[in-house]
Amino acid sequence: MTPKTRQDASSSLATPSFQIDRVVSELRTLRLRSLEDRQRRDRPPKLPSRKILVGIADGLRAVLFPNRLGLPDLTDESVDYYVGHMLDVTLRDLLVQVRRELRFVSGLEATSNAGIADREQAAAIIRAFAKRLPHVRSLLESDIQAAYEGDPAARSIDEVLVCYPGITAITHYRLAHELHCLGAPLIARMISEIAHSATGIEIHPGAKIGGSFFIDHGTGVVIGETAIIGEHVRLYQAVTLGAKRFPVDEHGALVKGNLRHPIVEDDVVIYAGATILGRITIGRGSTIGGNVWLTRSVPPGSNVSQAQTRNEVFDQGAGI
Amino acid sequence: MTPKTRQDASSSLATPSFQIDRVVSELRTLRLRSLEDRQRRDRPPKLPSRKILVGIADGLRAVLFPNRLGLPDLTDESVDYYVGHMLDVTLRDLLVQVRRELRFVSGLEATSNAGIADREQAAAIIRAFAKRLPHVRSLLESDIQAAYEGDPAARSIDEVLVCYPGITAITHYRLAHELHCLGAPLIARMISEIAHSATGIEIHPGAKIGGSFFIDHGTGVVIGETAIIGEHVRLYQAVTLGAKRFPVDEHGALVKGNLRHPIVEDDVVIYAGATILGRITIGRGSTIGGNVWLTRSVPPGSNVSQAQTRNEVFDQGAGI
Amino acid sequence: MTPKTRQDASSSLATPSFQIDRVVSELRTLRLRSLEDRQRRDRPPKLPSRKILVGIADGLRAVLFPNRLGLPDLTDESVDYYVGHMLDVTLRDLLVQVRRELRFVSGLEATSNAGIADREQAAAIIRAFAKRLPHVRSLLESDIQAAYEGDPAARSIDEVLVCYPGITAITHYRLAHELHCLGAPLIARMISEIAHSATGIEIHPGAKIGGSFFIDHGTGVVIGETAIIGEHVRLYQAVTLGAKRFPVDEHGALVKGNLRHPIVEDDVVIYAGATILGRITIGRGSTIGGNVWLTRSVPPGSNVSQAQTRNEVFDQGAGI
Amino acid sequence: MTPKTRQDASSSLATPSFQIDRVVSELRTLRLRSLEDRQRRDRPPKLPSRKILVGIADGLRAVLFPNRLGLPDLTDESVDYYVGHMLDVTLRDLLVQVRRELRFVSGLEATSNAGIADREQAAAIIRAFAKRLPHVRSLLESDIQAAYEGDPAARSIDEVLVCYPGITAITHYRLAHELHCLGAPLIARMISEIAHSATGIEIHPGAKIGGSFFIDHGTGVVIGETAIIGEHVRLYQAVTLGAKRFPVDEHGALVKGNLRHPIVEDDVVIYAGATILGRITIGRGSTIGGNVWLTRSVPPGSNVSQAQTRNEVFDQGAGI
Amino acid sequence: MTPKTRQDASSSLATPSFQIDRVVSELRTLRLRSLEDRQRRDRPPKLPSRKILVGIADGLRAVLFPNRLGLPDLTDESVDYYVGHMLDVTLRDLLVQVRRELRFVSGLEATSNAGIADREQAAAIIRAFAKRLPHVRSLLESDIQAAYEGDPAARSIDEVLVCYPGITAITHYRLAHELHCLGAPLIARMISEIAHSATGIEIHPGAKIGGSFFIDHGTGVVIGETAIIGEHVRLYQAVTLGAKRFPVDEHGALVKGNLRHPIVEDDVVIYAGATILGRITIGRGSTIGGNVWLTRSVPPGSNVSQAQTRNEVFDQGAGI
Amino acid sequence: MTPKTRQDASSSLATPSFQIDRVVSELRTLRLRSLEDRQRRDRPPKLPSRKILVGIADGLRAVLFPNRLGLPDLTDESVDYYVGHMLDVTLRDLLVQVRRELRFVSGLEATSNAGIADREQAAAIIRAFAKRLPHVRSLLESDIQAAYEGDPAARSIDEVLVCYPGITAITHYRLAHELHCLGAPLIARMISEIAHSATGIEIHPGAKIGGSFFIDHGTGVVIGETAIIGEHVRLYQAVTLGAKRFPVDEHGALVKGNLRHPIVEDDVVIYAGATILGRITIGRGSTIGGNVWLTRSVPPGSNVSQAQTRNEVFDQGAGI
Repeated sequence: MTPKTRQDASSSLATPSFQIDRVVSELRTLRLRSLEDRQRRDRPPKLPSRKILVGIADGLRAVLFPNRLGLPDLTDESVDYYVGHMLDVTLRDLLVQVRRELRFVSGLEATSNAGIADREQAAAIIRAFAKRLPHVRSLLESDIQAAYEGDPAARSIDEVLVCYPGITAITHYRLAHELHCLGAPLIARMISEIAHSATGIEIHPGAKIGGSFFIDHGTGVVIGETAIIGEHVRLYQAVTLGAKRFPVDEHGALVKGNLRHPIVEDDVVIYAGATILGRITIGRGSTIGGNVWLTRSVPPGSNVSQAQTRNEVFDQGAGI
Repeated sequence: MTPKTRQDASSSLATPSFQIDRVVSELRTLRLRSLEDRQRRDRPPKLPSRKILVGIADGLRAVLFPNRLGLPDLTDESVDYYVGHMLDVTLRDLLVQVRRELRFVSGLEATSNAGIADREQAAAIIRAFAKRLPHVRSLLESDIQAAYEGDPAARSIDEVLVCYPGITAITHYRLAHELHCLGAPLIARMISEIAHSATGIEIHPGAKIGGSFFIDHGTGVVIGETAIIGEHVRLYQAVTLGAKRFPVDEHGALVKGNLRHPIVEDDVVIYAGATILGRITIGRGSTIGGNVWLTRSVPPGSNVSQAQTRNEVFDQGAGI
Repeated sequence: MTPKTRQDASSSLATPSFQIDRVVSELRTLRLRSLEDRQRRDRPPKLPSRKILVGIADGLRAVLFPNRLGLPDLTDESVDYYVGHMLDVTLRDLLVQVRRELRFVSGLEATSNAGIADREQAAAIIRAFAKRLPHVRSLLESDIQAAYEGDPAARSIDEVLVCYPGITAITHYRLAHELHCLGAPLIARMISEIAHSATGIEIHPGAKIGGSFFIDHGTGVVIGETAIIGEHVRLYQAVTLGAKRFPVDEHGALVKGNLRHPIVEDDVVIYAGATILGRITIGRGSTIGGNVWLTRSVPPGSNVSQAQTRNEVFDQGAGI
Repeated sequence: MTPKTRQDASSSLATPSFQIDRVVSELRTLRLRSLEDRQRRDRPPKLPSRKILVGIADGLRAVLFPNRLGLPDLTDESVDYYVGHMLDVTLRDLLVQVRRELRFVSGLEATSNAGIADREQAAAIIRAFAKRLPHVRSLLESDIQAAYEGDPAARSIDEVLVCYPGITAITHYRLAHELHCLGAPLIARMISEIAHSATGIEIHPGAKIGGSFFIDHGTGVVIGETAIIGEHVRLYQAVTLGAKRFPVDEHGALVKGNLRHPIVEDDVVIYAGATILGRITIGRGSTIGGNVWLTRSVPPGSNVSQAQTRNEVFDQGAGI
Repeated sequence: MTPKTRQDASSSLATPSFQIDRVVSELRTLRLRSLEDRQRRDRPPKLPSRKILVGIADGLRAVLFPNRLGLPDLTDESVDYYVGHMLDVTLRDLLVQVRRELRFVSGLEATSNAGIADREQAAAIIRAFAKRLPHVRSLLESDIQAAYEGDPAARSIDEVLVCYPGITAITHYRLAHELHCLGAPLIARMISEIAHSATGIEIHPGAKIGGSFFIDHGTGVVIGETAIIGEHVRLYQAVTLGAKRFPVDEHGALVKGNLRHPIVEDDVVIYAGATILGRITIGRGSTIGGNVWLTRSVPPGSNVSQAQTRNEVFDQGAGI
Repeated sequence: MTPKTRQDASSSLATPSFQIDRVVSELRTLRLRSLEDRQRRDRPPKLPSRKILVGIADGLRAVLFPNRLGLPDLTDESVDYYVGHMLDVTLRDLLVQVRRELRFVSGLEATSNAGIADREQAAAIIRAFAKRLPHVRSLLESDIQAAYEGDPAARSIDEVLVCYPGITAITHYRLAHELHCLGAPLIARMISEIAHSATGIEIHPGAKIGGSFFIDHGTGVVIGETAIIGEHVRLYQAVTLGAKRFPVDEHGALVKGNLRHPIVEDDVVIYAGATILGRITIGRGSTIGGNVWLTRSVPPGSNVSQAQTRNEVFDQGAGI
């Protein structure tokens, strides 16, 4: 790697030199400085892998709905073998990822004695997670039923399961929520973002959402970390359940983790584009119209809509 | 699989047990109950495969634009062999999926005599679909031309074809629409959702859309099942052509399939974020401004815009 | 391929004929006509490949952040080998794509003498691009820091890098912007669209964006070709920095390339759904509220918000 | 595809023409003539797929030895799910291949009523085959034990299973032999040839071979269709158990299927390179030396060796 | 990459250092010395890729026998599209490899003007090769027929094509032989070695072999570069048609390329293990027995066999 | 999994039941019994993976010859990055496999404290192995040179490296031999068998072989565990360097590990099919003729050949 050799080569027609050595060296300097800034000089921590989590999420969906989202040719005598095998493989993959998260958070390395401790802790998380899967499936059945009942274009329960992006987003959310509560919030967030990328629907895994939940169309929906949603709630595309403002502490840094997103009670419908901000409560059975901007609580049975006539200005015949 | 063995194993350090047996058993119980509820106890029907439909959609796009979306090195003497071969492979894959949909709808199994009937019916659908492909290509050429003419950032026709998410969404829609009309609405919906996931643009395959159609940027666009769109219509991101309300029958169930989405006549432009709801008509040559909320018909040549000044409140210098 | 053979086959039960010959022939006619219309009769030009660009973008992200986005097991002694090797492979792949773009634009073929010219030109672009990578990494570090400081839900710098769609979109943008400036605007656009598809965030590679830029949630964000954004700017989902209108020349054709998108100065925050159109300036330190529609400049320190009370109409108890 | 277009292209520098049309046409003529010669004009029959059979053979080996040849991380609670799932998938793949063989032999097509008949027949073969798998595993355990005991270089039972080409060949043979006996001789032969390619050992699936069989090194071993081998027989590389001559009928055509290969009784050892031809019997407990050429029966306890001294000619000091 | 950093890391428990730097440096020294020894210091030449040639050989076999070795579901209307497309793709891949060989031999680089010359030369080779494919198919049909007629275990023509390693080896040979004669001997050799690895049969592509050639079992067969084989010749496993000795020139270096392998006339049968060495002639219609060692010519109709009785020594009852 | 359900299903036309439950249960019984017999009841040990070792062997060959067996487009500035990166990845993969072997041999599990011990031991093996790689490359260069000089058909050094199966086998052997000596004999054996399967050449990794070693053609060559081969030795196909007999101890069990294979001194040539058995010495510079059977030592300069005339029996004109 003497500079001599490189310059010779770069003058040749045949093989253009890109001066890789220099770029590698500059990137190393930046990387080391960045690690130092974050006191990570010695051991850059290993993070969970998004690619593997994509496979894990697919595996869990196949476990929950083997005939629809798993293999197409399963028979009565084979379906349980498939479910058991997929469960085993997927949980073991998840175990590896959870250990990565635990170590990342603790800053400890795999080879020390702590390595055995995080193994035990991760195994406990996985075991508890596995136990929750039947509960997750029950909730998802109620969601699918809600979608079928709530969309005039839906022809069958099965179509809803395989076609509706809202169902994909809710499935990822329900799995991620369990992991969030059991102590793997980073993996939970990553699983949630996988669905966000595929559907345009972002549900923070920390949100609490009751059964029979339906999101139609869905692109642009954002549901924040501390939002609470009751049962039989329906949302349309581009609805935001967000925070109104972010309080800062005396040093000007954000206060993290306070309750800052809306509570939506049972049987509420929120139409497309509505923006609901802050720790307010939308009372049971309310309807929030499209594009409404709402920052204070409304009592049960409210019907909030944008004043339609005012924002249509007719200027017939003219170009824009 | 005696419980004994399992408990022994779970007490070992080496191999954490996840109590798979119990989860498998609980999931089976839920699955059987769900099948019973839907009178599907004996034979869970096989659905079309989203993964295979992704490949089919790619194959059809390659057939329509072999030099741009197929292989990069095709020559004059080889391009027709490529098109013919891709067409053959793709149509046969599609045949299998259409048969799955037909059987799923009819509830009949593949092995009975009906299996031969659905084969004939599926083959007829595929044959009719193949015949429509040149028509689809003609329409898409007009769409691409419209995009090129409508976007100042577009530098060439080819760039539009390979870069613009709107073109991807319209291509999937035009293919899906043919399948929807020919009797494969579930596959049509699944193909449409594949584009929705990739582009954030949702066009129901039941909608009727004329030539020279252009969607710019596109994220968040929703076009409903019974919408009708004329020629030379242009849409921007986050435009909704939706239903205003969903009528229910005397039992409170949704009435499915009624005409509930807008009619947009020729030469209409609808700017970003506009929401147009119900079976209303936007007259030929109209312009609908950004963020407008519109629920009644407007005559040809209308120019509807949000009253801009009103919703800007200046509060100079203050924090939010 | 005599018609005889084909008809015989189509009457057989076993192998349904799809009349491929006819479809192939009609598609060829359309294709030739389309090439003629665009004076491309002889040699349909070869375009860069989106699929390969996906791999190149991943490779460049791995080069910039090898421990987080590259291989998980890199050690101190191996990381530079990895970076150097990935850089070499990725730049050579990019070289091939840039040559395709140069030839596509010039209309010249690879085998002529011009082929060597475009090779030199492409190599110069790649060399200059490689030199910019450390700068790109520096900017991205400031963006990641801004995200961490701006989102109360963010727990660590690393989580931001692997989880946040805004960071993905900005990374693709920053790489694409360099290529745009160096003379490969088509490839730049394609890389930008790859991020658009994954995140719902569309940033035109021509835009100029300063450091410490943060987009939260992000779905539906559109940033136009001539937009200029300062340092420490924060955007939320569905914000549009667009053009107000498109001037046409005397023949009615769009004037391409004029300055038509907003200038956003340092330390501006723009909340979800705000639409900012035209070559206006948002003064330093301003805050633009959610859903605001803004088409004229505002001075530094402005605080623009939608008049909230007016568009909430309470109609308690009634159906929508 | 007019000749005009092609010739133009071939004169261009850019895209060399290979006159594909002419080659395709000549190959079609040959293909049709060949089909006619074999009275297969209308429907070229579909054969089992070697590639899929490779996967099936791997799947069956994993079913038989899940911890060694299946997944490395199976636990007590998961191994049966894995075995059951692999068995299901593999048997269903095999079912498809067996149906292909049955139809190929009968000359009938899948869509006729006979299609259902072959389905029943194939399912019966698979069911019977599955029932034999535990028996096959028992035999293979005896073979592995024999290898361990017979080779001074073998350090453990597990090493024998994963390292020894002889075990690979015998495993394929034992699976293929069951299929041969149950009515799928073509698939059996193909599975046998897969092992032949990997090991250089050719065992015809029609041969009958007792337990505790060991082939060391193995390259070049050939065991013919009607050979019979007892228990505890050991073979070294390049041993042939072949036919002496092939009788022809009155038309000069080979008589197919007669008994023409050796019978090797229990406890026989045959050293490298020995050639044993014809329907002769090697009596129990005999030893056949290396390179021996044997065409007549030998009684139990025989010890046959090549006369060594005679074929060594010393010519010290001279070049060859 | 300072030594400091490395030693620190190697003392850590977590990440074992392998002293990669030192190994890389030593290997570089060896590589440069080796290149210098061969006057290749500046530009190590690029060789054809074995992996790509595997795909090319498979593609050519599919072109020759599309229904058997190509796709299983081809119909009358699709088979020619498949053949034409595969031919196009495969020939273009082969073109790239042939150019590599031409440049490797000439020592010239791709970018110089000579690059265009080798492109023309390679295209001429491919064109001539394509023209020969129908002839190759005709020869292979005669080979398959010979195998069917010569093996009592063969049940059908199709079984021979998909099962017999001899046919695989001869197919690769016949394709390689054409390339050898047309000026691509290195690629020819590599294709031949691919079959050698899969079948244990080594046929040098320079050998000349007439139609209706059959090799049964085949493992260990070696046919040398200058061998000439007539029509209707049959060989069994482990037959060698080799050179007797290698003449050296006055400097002691091997004389390359002289005629040194046997001529085998029509209708000869050579049984397993026979070794035939030197430029001798086996006269028409002769039979050479198993294990025979032959170094002089035999007249037509000869019947040469090993004296069997002499090399069997019976020593009944004794251990070896 | 009640028997009821299964029988119902098996009587249905649609989904043939294969009685998987029964097969799974019988296989479990066999598996448990087998584990008990070998006192492995609790923890079936994990073995190295052949599939991963295939990749490791390819990686090591690429490290040794990056321009020929690695990437085709490496430049002067990139080759060391490639070598360093491949080395890192390959050695870390190998580390995992070596740990598996160490644990398998010791019977200890990964999670215990011993897990850290085996990690240290494995790392020491890998470090020592890495250090030997330049030495291995030097030896291989001498082997390649010997092949080039010894085969009149070889046209270039590079052709020898990419074409000759003998070189493949020797490369695997030389790598495996280092691992064998460093304490990973099982992995060594598996790497050796990978080459055996690809080339038909079996070299036990325990054998000691000097530089400038050449095997021509090679199919059927067997070189035993305790063989010693000098420098400049040449072997042809089907040569065996084997053991004459296997001594047994007083219990009739094989004595393992004694010196039982030949010593071949420098400059010896052994022609095809020669069988050399037992701890004998072939003196320096000797030539052993084809098919010779040799079981006693010969002095330096010997020339041993089969008496040719005796085993050719002419029986002109008669059929066999």
